[in-house]
Amino acid sequence: MLSETDDPWLLTPGPLTTSLSVKQAMLHDWGSRDAAFIDMTARVRHRLAEIANVADTHVCVPVQGSGTFAVEATLGTLVPRDGKLLILINGAYGHRMGKICDYMGRAWQALETPEDIPVDLDALEICLREDAAITHVAVVHCETTSGIINPIKAVADCVERHGRALLIDTMSAFGALPLDGGQIRFDALMASSNKCFEAVPGLGYAIVRTQSLQAAAGNAHSLSLDLHAQWKGLEANGQWRFTPPIHVISSLDQAIREHTEEGGVDGRGARYSENCRVLVEGMRALGFQTLLPDELQAPIIVTFHMPSDPKFDFQHFYNALASQGFLIYPGKLTVADSFRIGCIGRLYPEQMHAALQAIEQVLEDMGVTQRGP
Amino acid sequence: MLSETDDPWLLTPGPLTTSLSVKQAMLHDWGSRDAAFIDMTARVRHRLAEIANVADTHVCVPVQGSGTFAVEATLGTLVPRDGKLLILINGAYGHRMGKICDYMGRAWQALETPEDIPVDLDALEICLREDAAITHVAVVHCETTSGIINPIKAVADCVERHGRALLIDTMSAFGALPLDGGQIRFDALMASSNKCFEAVPGLGYAIVRTQSLQAAAGNAHSLSLDLHAQWKGLEANGQWRFTPPIHVISSLDQAIREHTEEGGVDGRGARYSENCRVLVEGMRALGFQTLLPDELQAPIIVTFHMPSDPKFDFQHFYNALASQGFLIYPGKLTVADSFRIGCIGRLYPEQMHAALQAIEQVLEDMGVTQRGP
Repeated sequence: MLSETDDPWLLTPGPLTTSLSVKQAMLHDWGSRDAAFIDMTARVRHRLAEIANVADTHVCVPVQGSGTFAVEATLGTLVPRDGKLLILINGAYGHRMGKICDYMGRAWQALETPEDIPVDLDALEICLREDAAITHVAVVHCETTSGIINPIKAVADCVERHGRALLIDTMSAFGALPLDGGQIRFDALMASSNKCFEAVPGLGYAIVRTQSLQAAAGNAHSLSLDLHAQWKGLEANGQWRFTPPIHVISSLDQAIREHTEEGGVDGRGARYSENCRVLVEGMRALGFQTLLPDELQAPIIVTFHMPSDPKFDFQHFYNALASQGFLIYPGKLTVADSFRIGCIGRLYPEQMHAALQAIEQVLEDMGVTQRGP
Repeated sequence: MLSETDDPWLLTPGPLTTSLSVKQAMLHDWGSRDAAFIDMTARVRHRLAEIANVADTHVCVPVQGSGTFAVEATLGTLVPRDGKLLILINGAYGHRMGKICDYMGRAWQALETPEDIPVDLDALEICLREDAAITHVAVVHCETTSGIINPIKAVADCVERHGRALLIDTMSAFGALPLDGGQIRFDALMASSNKCFEAVPGLGYAIVRTQSLQAAAGNAHSLSLDLHAQWKGLEANGQWRFTPPIHVISSLDQAIREHTEEGGVDGRGARYSENCRVLVEGMRALGFQTLLPDELQAPIIVTFHMPSDPKFDFQHFYNALASQGFLIYPGKLTVADSFRIGCIGRLYPEQMHAALQAIEQVLEDMGVTQRGP
């Protein structure tokens, strides 16, 4: 079973399956300094800020590259050279922010919980009370390492009470899980074109409190990743400082339109939740166990324990599913042997059911009966 | 007169008009960690190194983002923290390399000539003889600020004689102007998907001497722009460290195929030279003057002096040409009032003739008779 463009379905955390119309939006060329493209950039930036419900207080600043480029640009621009970042870590993307700080020579501290445990609010409270040097706190909304959802609202409230600035890596969640700037106070969120908005990859962006960005001139460690300069350039004449990935932006423009048509964050989130429910129930019926209890599971990507059956070989399982048109994802956990199946992208319950059928068939062909860990 | 996808023709230094087939190569989705995409990445990297005739000694390392991202990644990774970069400057892209060094805190020195004068070989010789601290030299192959071609071979010979490393920003020239690593010794060249290879924008790359890259661990100032780590990741399993712009890469894969079909660098260069000849002769016939004498003019983009006629208004001229399907480019010179017209992208003499007709018509409508400066 292949997609409408004869491609395998991507049951991954990204790049994802996109709609044909999102891809077809790339069948044009634009002059990057021409009015038509300037309008497109402005529209995309404004809509993304609107979806976060912060169009009056924040600006969306896009960055060429992957989501990590936007995370690095945001940390490097907003955390002053004499600032200190507290990072709440329960997976690879939290650790990556620490690595970014090491490269930049910024002071940082980790507050780490295991990959299957949400970030620790009590420890956060104590840390902020006791360490006045901490200027910023960073947290990952949904850690695709495990698929866990972190308690963003409680984190934001704690950070606000202590008068620090919050930076949210909501890469894999923004557009499908609620993140309402009217409810959740943040200085910046970081996301990309290619997750829950279902555009093609190649663009990251941050939605940043304008006041904080204004104060951030001269902080950045990198010309390419200077979010302040990028913003100033866009504000001056609507043009990008450096060649933008115009086709990627056009696909995002179309993808945002389709996101709105689906009912925005609520509609998109409802489809992913249904995908996730079908997947988890089906996999459990086949004998698999999820890493996470349901209340910690984001409807983004699900981690399953590797079956204990000695007949199970992941690479064989992967290849057999790939030959049936479904690409799944290896595990990234340090705590347990696992693999992952994503619920996001242009996928519907129909595809989840078909993937489950393929999985059942492959397991039977392999003779795998013990599917729990 | 519009392109086959009903878009205006882009007579700019990029983003450029691309072929329909290059755009259609983006009508698929790939898993970034799946074999099909791993093969595509390897093929693109290998072909680019082959085209520079350095497949045995250098590796191609792609970087998400624009060409500037690749330039910054290359400077930051190859110039050690205690190194010193000498930058030959005769336009905005030389200055940009200096700005990158300022951000990174790397020592650098400029050797500047006016925008309409090639870089100064005698001064280079003296500089390298007298300043032992200089470890690297950087030069721009074709400065699109003016359209000038710099004497790359002579620069490379001088740098080699003095035992320093050469970094060539050949962004706007690679693929159309000869740059043969067998003739011209360089440690790195930097280019992008979207200039003379005629793919869509969103990817930069460097082609780096393997030995130099091996010695460059720990130099980089940025996780995202660490060329050494990017290379190590690709070498380990063929996969990208961070989400790649898969559709852009697929367009580049197709674009390289079309480049080969056109006869490689010679074929592509011949078409651009003919485009340039038609353009320059036609514009001179209309009374315009080029900034550069023909022997300094690269067949990439041509700078024309702004007409002195008080009836000439550039924005009106631009808009009138745009409404006829031709997007030209404003000037970037500091020395003279000018505008630019590009010769690269999926353009043929037919389009150059049509553009000239449109220009003639618009000038008549505007009543502009004095077209010289």
